[in-house]
Amino acid sequence: MREIRSRADDVEDKEKGIKIAKKDWEKLHLHIASHNNFPTAAGLASSAAGFACLVFALAKLMNVNEDPSQLSAIARQGSGSACRSLFGGFVKWNMGNKEDGSDSVAVQLVDDKHWDDLVIIIAVVSSRQKETSSTSGMRESVETSLLLQHRAKEVVPVRILQMEEAIKNRDFTSFTKLTCSDSNQFHAVCMDTSPPIFYMNDTSHRIISLVEKWNRSAGTPEIAYTFDAGPNAVMIARNRKVAVELLQGLLYCFPPKPDTDMKSYVLGDTSIVKEAGLEGELPQGIKDKIGSQDQKGEVSYFICSRPGRGPVVLQDQTQALLHPQTGLPK
Amino acid sequence: MREIRSRADDVEDKEKGIKIAKKDWEKLHLHIASHNNFPTAAGLASSAAGFACLVFALAKLMNVNEDPSQLSAIARQGSGSACRSLFGGFVKWNMGNKEDGSDSVAVQLVDDKHWDDLVIIIAVVSSRQKETSSTSGMRESVETSLLLQHRAKEVVPVRILQMEEAIKNRDFTSFTKLTCSDSNQFHAVCMDTSPPIFYMNDTSHRIISLVEKWNRSAGTPEIAYTFDAGPNAVMIARNRKVAVELLQGLLYCFPPKPDTDMKSYVLGDTSIVKEAGLEGELPQGIKDKIGSQDQKGEVSYFICSRPGRGPVVLQDQTQALLHPQTGLPK
Repeated sequence: MREIRSRADDVEDKEKGIKIAKKDWEKLHLHIASHNNFPTAAGLASSAAGFACLVFALAKLMNVNEDPSQLSAIARQGSGSACRSLFGGFVKWNMGNKEDGSDSVAVQLVDDKHWDDLVIIIAVVSSRQKETSSTSGMRESVETSLLLQHRAKEVVPVRILQMEEAIKNRDFTSFTKLTCSDSNQFHAVCMDTSPPIFYMNDTSHRIISLVEKWNRSAGTPEIAYTFDAGPNAVMIARNRKVAVELLQGLLYCFPPKPDTDMKSYVLGDTSIVKEAGLEGELPQGIKDKIGSQDQKGEVSYFICSRPGRGPVVLQDQTQALLHPQTGLPK
Repeated sequence: MREIRSRADDVEDKEKGIKIAKKDWEKLHLHIASHNNFPTAAGLASSAAGFACLVFALAKLMNVNEDPSQLSAIARQGSGSACRSLFGGFVKWNMGNKEDGSDSVAVQLVDDKHWDDLVIIIAVVSSRQKETSSTSGMRESVETSLLLQHRAKEVVPVRILQMEEAIKNRDFTSFTKLTCSDSNQFHAVCMDTSPPIFYMNDTSHRIISLVEKWNRSAGTPEIAYTFDAGPNAVMIARNRKVAVELLQGLLYCFPPKPDTDMKSYVLGDTSIVKEAGLEGELPQGIKDKIGSQDQKGEVSYFICSRPGRGPVVLQDQTQALLHPQTGLPK
């Protein structure tokens, strides 16, 4: 969650639905504070969340009733993927055809209620290596990777259609196949860049092996994984039962350091932690799925989440990340 | 070096050049012992060396005066890349056009004297992960990677010609660019395989970063790197001076564990170790080239070498890896 709070002291009360006259805009004084409750610059789309939140908050403040795709086009200028973050559920970023990119906007495919069995577990992986920002990394790939062109022209257009179909039909098997293959191909193109970009590390690789082994052992895909421009694993479990088992398996393979409170090691929807239980021996059924895992990796913490609803105006002050009086992070 | 020794007790003395009559072949009794002085199944082409040595040794034993490309075709059936290992210097593996693969053989481009400035330093990188054999890995890539086809059709044929030109002209800049890009693209295709194959690990990535940083800092490429089907780095230094500096830098970044004898940590042409000197502070010029390297990686040992001369019949028993009486590894 990213919260941006704006204050425009000179503006009429927007709760009453009064539009700001254009001539008054220059009197506006804005206080903008941006804060997020998940890691920044760690490949978890923090800049996308930030720019989407900024555009959304300003639009709400100014009572802009634009077509959402127009806001999407504005957000895109801050950070490409911000155009997607204006919507909840499953979102598609259309490439667009225009030279100026004005039709390169996102559209919501389905909202977050369409496929609400899914549970997301994110492993925030420790990284000691210098990060490549996703924006500069993508530019270098476009300039130097000989595989990127082929991926963009031949592979992605087909997969986009297959993915839309999989989402529409809640077809978890196809969804997993496409999600994992496309994540791996994105990282393949990063490696084909000169100089090569390595976002994933040994811990990321171990998590992939664990999930691949799990799905083979289960006979049918139960978990999808995807990695953005960083080492963190985003795992999508077919349902809550699988998510609970997966969290058990993950905590077995990547236990917190001694003296680490479980509350600071598993964040987000902690009801899954409670259900997973963390006492006693790991059930044999889960051991079979994860296979032998003798090497301990390094995970900073886990986040349990669900497909999101997109940006909203918070009515409940207790949910706020910013202090109600100062407007600064609490 | 791989040594295979064959004994055919019933055969006429081949020193005298007497061919074995075909009818006598069934009387042959062979003792074959195979031993190598570098790691097996670690992505250092040990199976290629083994099969090339076997085919070469049997051909010598039987006084087969075949066209070398015919021996190459025979070796290829044991392990694909064995067809290359029958020659020294720089070798090209022709894909061939025939359905049965009989013209998929290797040819020597230039011998080991053509470009004798080059020095090779191999970092044998510790790996705790289960290895994927290069043969099964390649099969899986052919079956599942959507990028491999493009690489094979569009990228490799062009690079092969550029590489032949670079070798012919001893053009180290082009040689480095092609070597590094192609290594990275091979590993990109491995990652694009389902399930993905990761041969390189964090230590491999660190070595790549070190070399990339080094070449940028030097202004012109001084070191090429390439990784086969494993985490080990094969670095090719432009000349001996660079190799000495590189070894100094590598030993600074990847020092041996306490109580490890340097003789067991740097193998091969140890005159480079002597020249590198291992006492005192690392020169600032080398520090500048390798950049900040605060994270220690894990290298099992280094091998210093040169472009090889290919298989030879050893005349000097002291060079043998096998015991002269028993024919077993010493």
